Amino acid sequence: MPDEKIGFIGTGIMGKPMAHNLLKAGYSLTVHTRTKSKADSLVQAGADWADTPADVAKISDIIITCVTDTPDVEQVLLGKNGVIETAKPGLVCIDTSTISPAETKKMGSVLQAKGITLIDSPISGGEIGAIEAKLSIMMGGPKETVEKVRPIMEKMGRTITWCGPLGFGQITKLANQIMVIHTVVSTAEGLAFAEKAGLDLETTLKVTSAGAASSHLLKALGPKIIAGDFKPGFMVDLQQKDLRLVLEYAKQINQPLPGTELVEKLFAVLQKQGRGRDGIQSLIDVIRQLALQI
Amino acid sequence: MPDEKIGFIGTGIMGKPMAHNLLKAGYSLTVHTRTKSKADSLVQAGADWADTPADVAKISDIIITCVTDTPDVEQVLLGKNGVIETAKPGLVCIDTSTISPAETKKMGSVLQAKGITLIDSPISGGEIGAIEAKLSIMMGGPKETVEKVRPIMEKMGRTITWCGPLGFGQITKLANQIMVIHTVVSTAEGLAFAEKAGLDLETTLKVTSAGAASSHLLKALGPKIIAGDFKPGFMVDLQQKDLRLVLEYAKQINQPLPGTELVEKLFAVLQKQGRGRDGIQSLIDVIRQLALQI
Repeated sequence: MPDEKIGFIGTGIMGKPMAHNLLKAGYSLTVHTRTKSKADSLVQAGADWADTPADVAKISDIIITCVTDTPDVEQVLLGKNGVIETAKPGLVCIDTSTISPAETKKMGSVLQAKGITLIDSPISGGEIGAIEAKLSIMMGGPKETVEKVRPIMEKMGRTITWCGPLGFGQITKLANQIMVIHTVVSTAEGLAFAEKAGLDLETTLKVTSAGAASSHLLKALGPKIIAGDFKPGFMVDLQQKDLRLVLEYAKQINQPLPGTELVEKLFAVLQKQGRGRDGIQSLIDVIRQLALQI
Repeated sequence: MPDEKIGFIGTGIMGKPMAHNLLKAGYSLTVHTRTKSKADSLVQAGADWADTPADVAKISDIIITCVTDTPDVEQVLLGKNGVIETAKPGLVCIDTSTISPAETKKMGSVLQAKGITLIDSPISGGEIGAIEAKLSIMMGGPKETVEKVRPIMEKMGRTITWCGPLGFGQITKLANQIMVIHTVVSTAEGLAFAEKAGLDLETTLKVTSAGAASSHLLKALGPKIIAGDFKPGFMVDLQQKDLRLVLEYAKQINQPLPGTELVEKLFAVLQKQGRGRDGIQSLIDVIRQLALQI
């Protein structure tokens, strides 16, 4: 039975199944999340509850955070009742949220001064990947620390990659998200064109999925689009948060991304229409609406 | 041994291996192409040479064309010394070029008046797909005619799909090309960002290829980009021809495609720089150059 005491902060759609996989692997787990009821199933499965991140830190050797955005991570780690208030030197914080690489580096320096090592560790693979412990995990920070915690990460993911120093996990995730959204555009513009031209969409999807046009998301989102299913696998609002992080960082490093800039504007149309909580496949409706405006 | 006499017009990068596959399958083949030397290997392998498309048509039950653009097909089928001059009623013409759906329909009407059936039949899969007889073939025209020639097409391709009436093969190919170019943008912007940010590109490619960002062309073009290999699998000039066809047809059906319109402009930069004959993975250089202009 593994002897590290793990704290887990943020038990939402992704965090909850990840924490369950650690419990199943026999780890001793202390959990905290903003809405206590979201941790109920974990407590029933044997996790201890803590009222604040500081209470988690008191008794943990390793803390995993899985929250939404940069300010949430700052609050949990450095804020009032945050991890930094009670953490013992030697604590390792593994942040699986997708947040700003630059802010990650700043937080890492603040924590380092207290003897705490921050590892950035954003994840890809969605809810299903989290449930099935098949996440792709992109890690940044001291390589020896990453290797030390690798056995823990392997309980939650299938591909655990050391990407470089602190922040490089986040940057790799942002590169990943750039690639993701263009395959969404690929699916949305291709199928909108096919539909407007009167093609049979099932046939079009079958043909295009079989060849050079194929992508993971064409196969995953194409059938949903044809079925008119706009439920989120991945939400427009979260996609836009990631694109904001991409474009902020691209600006910092002076790398224009004309395609990504355009897609951010197209997704913003959906948000204005109140569809921020729909799935990213909803992008096709923006393309469809352009046709109605002619 | 199959008893249809097949004519094959246009034995370039794609047409030559396709014609070889028909010879291997035992078909009697008459070939013509603009530059006679490009048919040498076929004549050596047993094909008959004809000096003009009209000479091909005299002795063929089925003619397959594989040329570049709309005017080339018009010339071969309807021009001086074209197929229409000598074709017997009942001839089936199978055009595997990627050309205008609207012009395809017009040519079909002209040929129909002479008792000739035109089938549009654009192909996807590249030179390797042609050599290995693994093309995806998108066919439009009378379903019974498509089914009649299916055994012939199966000697050249792996996925033979009837997409609808005449022109629908072309429209399906255009939808396919829309999807293709966005996966090229996905690869180019993602890797340009990763490179500028100082990530290890091999690691980035490995991580992104394994998850939601994955696409056929990320896996095919990513390693070429990392190796600095800009040789064409598919040429910028041909991609631009296809995008022109996409945007022309999208305009005809009143379907704006903002992403595709942007990508056409980005590829045009490469053409202006004299790189029209480079591979489409060269798009990353346009993104790299944008960074140099800041």
